[in-house]
Amino acid sequence: MAVVGASRNPRKVGHIILRNILEYGFRGRVYPVNPHASTILGLRAYPSLTSLPETVDVAVVAVPAEKVPRVVQDAGEAGIPFLVIVSSGFREVGRHDLEEEVLRIARKYGVRIIGPNVAGIVYTPARLNATFGPRDVIPGSIAFISQSGAFAIALMGATINEGMGVSAIVSVGNKVDIDDVDLLEYFETDSNTSVVLMYVEGLRDGRRFLRVASKVSLRKPVIIIKAGRTEAGAKAAASHTGSLAGSFDVYRAAFRQSGVLLATSMEEAFDAAKAFAWNPLPRGDRVLVITNGGGAGIQAVDTLVERRIRVEEPPTELQDRMKSFLPNFASTRNPIDLTGMAHADWFYRAIKEAMRHPWVDAIVVLYTQTGLSGPVETAKAILDAIREEGHAKPVTVGLLGGPECIRAARLLTKERVAAYPTPERAANAMSFLVEYVRLRDYVKERLSELQYA
Amino acid sequence: MAVVGASRNPRKVGHIILRNILEYGFRGRVYPVNPHASTILGLRAYPSLTSLPETVDVAVVAVPAEKVPRVVQDAGEAGIPFLVIVSSGFREVGRHDLEEEVLRIARKYGVRIIGPNVAGIVYTPARLNATFGPRDVIPGSIAFISQSGAFAIALMGATINEGMGVSAIVSVGNKVDIDDVDLLEYFETDSNTSVVLMYVEGLRDGRRFLRVASKVSLRKPVIIIKAGRTEAGAKAAASHTGSLAGSFDVYRAAFRQSGVLLATSMEEAFDAAKAFAWNPLPRGDRVLVITNGGGAGIQAVDTLVERRIRVEEPPTELQDRMKSFLPNFASTRNPIDLTGMAHADWFYRAIKEAMRHPWVDAIVVLYTQTGLSGPVETAKAILDAIREEGHAKPVTVGLLGGPECIRAARLLTKERVAAYPTPERAANAMSFLVEYVRLRDYVKERLSELQYA
Repeated sequence: MAVVGASRNPRKVGHIILRNILEYGFRGRVYPVNPHASTILGLRAYPSLTSLPETVDVAVVAVPAEKVPRVVQDAGEAGIPFLVIVSSGFREVGRHDLEEEVLRIARKYGVRIIGPNVAGIVYTPARLNATFGPRDVIPGSIAFISQSGAFAIALMGATINEGMGVSAIVSVGNKVDIDDVDLLEYFETDSNTSVVLMYVEGLRDGRRFLRVASKVSLRKPVIIIKAGRTEAGAKAAASHTGSLAGSFDVYRAAFRQSGVLLATSMEEAFDAAKAFAWNPLPRGDRVLVITNGGGAGIQAVDTLVERRIRVEEPPTELQDRMKSFLPNFASTRNPIDLTGMAHADWFYRAIKEAMRHPWVDAIVVLYTQTGLSGPVETAKAILDAIREEGHAKPVTVGLLGGPECIRAARLLTKERVAAYPTPERAANAMSFLVEYVRLRDYVKERLSELQYA
Repeated sequence: MAVVGASRNPRKVGHIILRNILEYGFRGRVYPVNPHASTILGLRAYPSLTSLPETVDVAVVAVPAEKVPRVVQDAGEAGIPFLVIVSSGFREVGRHDLEEEVLRIARKYGVRIIGPNVAGIVYTPARLNATFGPRDVIPGSIAFISQSGAFAIALMGATINEGMGVSAIVSVGNKVDIDDVDLLEYFETDSNTSVVLMYVEGLRDGRRFLRVASKVSLRKPVIIIKAGRTEAGAKAAASHTGSLAGSFDVYRAAFRQSGVLLATSMEEAFDAAKAFAWNPLPRGDRVLVITNGGGAGIQAVDTLVERRIRVEEPPTELQDRMKSFLPNFASTRNPIDLTGMAHADWFYRAIKEAMRHPWVDAIVVLYTQTGLSGPVETAKAILDAIREEGHAKPVTVGLLGGPECIRAARLLTKERVAAYPTPERAANAMSFLVEYVRLRDYVKERLSELQYA
């Protein structure tokens, strides 16, 4: 690949992108392009895309906007099929003319473009971090598509804070050519991606989006943060990316029909993405809540029901199994309340029973910090139970308490168990999994009806 | 004060409570009560409450349930006015008889009781931590009343994680005598408390609660996490504390009429409490959003409007002041979009303008991590602007990005500026302040109408 606008100046975007590519360990060859330097970061620099020793697969472009048309021209002449144009200064500042020129040249040569006005691109299976964001993105299976470049960069950082692994991070910026829907379609068949998270302000072609999203949702979950849900928010979106946000009620209904999951906050979207990435899907919608704290259990049940997940009493037989090791005042009616007397071992046994019993489709485990069972000790017991049962059902864990709970959550995160600092967030994340399976089955049914109609 | 059931065994609740009292630095004299020890933790132990060298103000009781009636009897004879009964094993395990006996003896002597089945009591102005929870609670002005002891203990830990200062933490347990409403009434006039946070499963006397809450809400914000909002949640509450949760719709309407703020999650309640504790109240409901990231700005606006806060365009004059130092493509229509080009100094200037302009009642500041203005540097600029203007208006800050954003948020937290890891949480916390002022004015009006009717 090539980086046009690569620079020796460590404050320049072109420098940071090249450095990230090299330091993150990209597996292919990299060519800096800069007519004013002979070497950059130890690599030989070339004056233009037409002077490279081979035809690269993709060039990242970080030169001032006025110089971009010329770079596209060079790319076309050199036969380079893809450009990621990081440069800003186009439509978003009123320079529609410059953007149209770029598109015209690209069309002439058949060059495909991401951008302009994007943050670059991350694809961890190729060890590629060609962005000016943080370097040490964690490899994983979440693909993130963002309309906003700044948002993408900030979220890269947030994934690191959360210990979340990503397969790809792409912002679409002004979408002169490749847009969010193209990328969504790409991730449908990308075997390195198990869940797609999108930040969307406005969609260019709503119908096309819904068609593609319905298709992708059948294979993997698609979570959308739709910004501009309110009139004031839509106005703000219009001045940000010129997006026409449209009526949110229409979006909401359409998303649902396409099996797309809607998140109203970043936190919620992240929480859900983590739960999807690290869990099998539930087979049905029967969630069992296991807790050592009554309050946490009630909050989780309320959250589940408020998200339209039923919480039902498990069969007597399963309750009896739980009762065999619990004190007689413990409730086993969902939540399974291990009570404040619970030792780590009770969590272990309860989770194992739940994993084995066919009635249970998904498990929300809640720990309220007590002296009888420390957070880290409890986390280990939870982990053992999940592992020994081959992580056969999805589990989210809420750990409520002090600094040791943060350590315990980190331990679980490292082992790819989705852990959260409150019972509500653990329950809410699980509700996305159940909702996904429900919507997917609904979309499947609808599609087969259409087929045989 | 006295600790009945103080123990030399470091795993016993009576030991932990005594140790917390001593190590947290309680200012008064402390007497361990235990007939089987001569000294505990370096203090002389006494065989019973009747053998103490002086009449203590309060005794914390942590002995097995069957021994509690005798302790109450001793307290009565010794003239001790208050007991905090930590012991469990009463109504919550079916021993109504034991609980009634305790109450009967207490009534006879006029002894007032918190509990049984509570986590103890924290009151930081007296440097009192008489709980078996974490020791290093941060002093501050948030009072926390919890129906569940376990929840209280876990939340003590969570306040430490969040850097939140508390004035008091009290759980009410089985509420044999003093209940949540009594405590709420107490905190009305407690000058060390500026905001009251309650975790409630069920209320014994709804009318009384509403009467008291209306009165307290006129003086300071009352935030309630009401558990058992759904049928399944209410069932769980019934098996947890035997609470009859009642219809949530009725609660919701009644809370609103009393000026009480409703939180549906712990995170939301904490976020709001922090914003109240560290900010002046807004004078009106005009919120200005200042951001360097378009996406974060839109998400914040959506969140505010979804919480029924209007987001309006500021007067031209204020927009012009902002425009004087912003690039011409920056929007100043709310959000004030400083754009991705923003340096820390732009935050500083924008916040100062907003603090000074009479149109602005409250400010939500959003930072999306960029290379141009680092998180810590930006946090310092935000802090300077707030301080120089005497923190005259409420401010919440959302910092979106990587590990450095966590450091920046810690810096702000240390300086008592309410900081959050996402734009939505910063906006949501601010919505509670605006909502409070609105409800308070509504309650005031209604009361004066009643008065002059």
